[in-house]
Amino acid sequence: MAEQRIEVTYLTQAKDLQKKAEAIAVGMTVGSWTDLPAAKQAELQPYLGEAVGANPLETLENGEIRGTITVSYPVRNFTKDVPSLLTGVFGKLSMDGKIKLVDIKLPEQFVSAFPGPKFGIEGVRERLGVHDRPLLMSIFKSCLGLPFDDLKTQFRAQAMGGVDLVKDDEIFFADERAPFLERIKAFRQIAAEVEQQTGKPVLYAPNLTGPVDRLNDRAKQAIEAGAPCLLFNVLPYGYDALHRLAADPDITVPIMAHPALAGAYYPSADYGITVSLLLGKLLRLVGADLVLFPSPYGNVALDKDEALALAGHLVSPELALKKSFPVPSAGIHPGLVPQLFKDFGMDQVVNAGGGIHGHPGGATAGAQAFVAAIRAVVNGQELQEAAEQSEPLKTALAKWGNGR
Amino acid sequence: MAEQRIEVTYLTQAKDLQKKAEAIAVGMTVGSWTDLPAAKQAELQPYLGEAVGANPLETLENGEIRGTITVSYPVRNFTKDVPSLLTGVFGKLSMDGKIKLVDIKLPEQFVSAFPGPKFGIEGVRERLGVHDRPLLMSIFKSCLGLPFDDLKTQFRAQAMGGVDLVKDDEIFFADERAPFLERIKAFRQIAAEVEQQTGKPVLYAPNLTGPVDRLNDRAKQAIEAGAPCLLFNVLPYGYDALHRLAADPDITVPIMAHPALAGAYYPSADYGITVSLLLGKLLRLVGADLVLFPSPYGNVALDKDEALALAGHLVSPELALKKSFPVPSAGIHPGLVPQLFKDFGMDQVVNAGGGIHGHPGGATAGAQAFVAAIRAVVNGQELQEAAEQSEPLKTALAKWGNGR
Repeated sequence: MAEQRIEVTYLTQAKDLQKKAEAIAVGMTVGSWTDLPAAKQAELQPYLGEAVGANPLETLENGEIRGTITVSYPVRNFTKDVPSLLTGVFGKLSMDGKIKLVDIKLPEQFVSAFPGPKFGIEGVRERLGVHDRPLLMSIFKSCLGLPFDDLKTQFRAQAMGGVDLVKDDEIFFADERAPFLERIKAFRQIAAEVEQQTGKPVLYAPNLTGPVDRLNDRAKQAIEAGAPCLLFNVLPYGYDALHRLAADPDITVPIMAHPALAGAYYPSADYGITVSLLLGKLLRLVGADLVLFPSPYGNVALDKDEALALAGHLVSPELALKKSFPVPSAGIHPGLVPQLFKDFGMDQVVNAGGGIHGHPGGATAGAQAFVAAIRAVVNGQELQEAAEQSEPLKTALAKWGNGR
Repeated sequence: MAEQRIEVTYLTQAKDLQKKAEAIAVGMTVGSWTDLPAAKQAELQPYLGEAVGANPLETLENGEIRGTITVSYPVRNFTKDVPSLLTGVFGKLSMDGKIKLVDIKLPEQFVSAFPGPKFGIEGVRERLGVHDRPLLMSIFKSCLGLPFDDLKTQFRAQAMGGVDLVKDDEIFFADERAPFLERIKAFRQIAAEVEQQTGKPVLYAPNLTGPVDRLNDRAKQAIEAGAPCLLFNVLPYGYDALHRLAADPDITVPIMAHPALAGAYYPSADYGITVSLLLGKLLRLVGADLVLFPSPYGNVALDKDEALALAGHLVSPELALKKSFPVPSAGIHPGLVPQLFKDFGMDQVVNAGGGIHGHPGGATAGAQAFVAAIRAVVNGQELQEAAEQSEPLKTALAKWGNGR
């Protein structure tokens, strides 16, 4: 069987795009080519990158062509981890003028060495016993510095409203007032009490922090203390940290990836890494069960096409791995639920912070408004009509409007 | 004692920069402020960020002001590691429109919890017994796919020319043909043989790779096998991985940080993280003994002021930590040594790949040309004059020119 190859697409500019692709193919693999003796060429051929093609988009004022180029790399050039992959296809190249990493097509031989999501969409749904609607998550109003009792009150209020998941703030590292394991135990107890009243489980995702070489231990301690899920800032820690968490058979809960720091990579047109690769394909590869990303709504938002491409990577059959739950976040209120459903479908998590806590009736009513909105949308009912049966939804629509 | 604060400068744009700074100060800490009751405000005050100031640079066509803003954060908001720091000052903020992280001023209380370089400039000099000139490093012509014997030949040729350090290619992860521990042992033997002949030690830096939670073990195995230094791709693995390596008392060799992937962060004017913070201050904080970064020479190069600012952070007394060796890299040939010396001074590593291997007389002559150039510059001698005494330098100047 011929060795499979990794196909990488870049957006760049050059006098001659094809020549640039050829230079990258050599420069990022064997270093030099035309000056090698034939015997050496034969020896290094299996490691040589190859220029697959160039796709010009526009001619710039300086006479250069802007466009995408595709270079393929032998799988054998890499160890099966993201540090090797990113260093090998974009390490020094990232510093070589205007160039953006657009996409990486990974052969099965490479993908199969990665964990992928341990639970994925189906596994998370199993845990909650919910299969017929988008899930609902709420975020604490804030975590930093709050007394433990305030956090408990917040947790209970959100859970009572019927949310499926509650997550910590991603900035919650210094947690002396409500230490990691203690709050996991406390919220587990509250979740059990709420479930007794409502009949609904709720999964709490504490923010997994600590030294990178101790994260797996910390995760296991969290699970032992009763954490049913984990939140993790993947980019500040590096993809490989999530890879090792997901690959650990003793880590038996879903992992939710937060996009913190992603904006340092994706928004530039000329540099960095596209958001669909950064938060889509790569996070699924290393094992995120749920992926938060900026929603395409609101003032500062992800471009709609990019958000859809990102969500597409999380569920696409291109990767023979379980699917990750898309969690389009920020600026979400109940009136947006029909739009969310239209854009991201059934398999998504509706995620709100201000849209729950800012409800005039409080967080419980805020969550109830979302529950009603989700039920309506799944049943093909107009929100306005559903609001007739739900005072919290009516209040929410009056505050935030119906639609964008 | 009043709690110390972390002062963060951003480059951004807004209708009102001061208001934007105030919004960030609240949004990145306690979440909301003006709507909190007075008792809650009193409770959260110690965690509240503060807008320190705004410095307008220009008015844009859309009427917004572009400029820098500074926000201070209480040290207590963070655990003492880079994931907490970056998530806390730039995590979600990085995705909030045009904003670039420019600098972070760290109080001693925070810095003192970090390892910093274990050896630093003085410690590396000690190991080599060289105190009176810039050091010289060479890079393999290429590593990937080469038979072990070829690498041994390359290593010997470079070492015989008088270099102080030799480093692996940063893309050298898949090393089946010359496995990590085996090549460390082989090159250790060659280095000893060379030292017997030349009287000069040479430090080999193998590329430290593997799962992030096993890196410390792999580093110790490398040291046991005789590795006198380590190369590490910090950004693909995350800053915390270097932090844990540097903080480990059993890792008893200098660590060299490669800038792979840095270009995904720094080149945009509007987004990302400035290179001086990314590769300067933060790498020193987490313990890089030597820091490679793009030189300000050549076609595609770092802006000169940025390169100098970066190098400045590596040695500045602002951080009460050992100094990191600046290693301006790429496009270096012997004729550039006077310029390098003028720009980066005595405490730098002159680092060359093509400028050594491309020498018409081979890698040994290539290294000898640099040795002669460095000696000349330190002695205040013109290269042209020194070339009268050094055939290799004469040849190098004929090929690459004298100066830029």
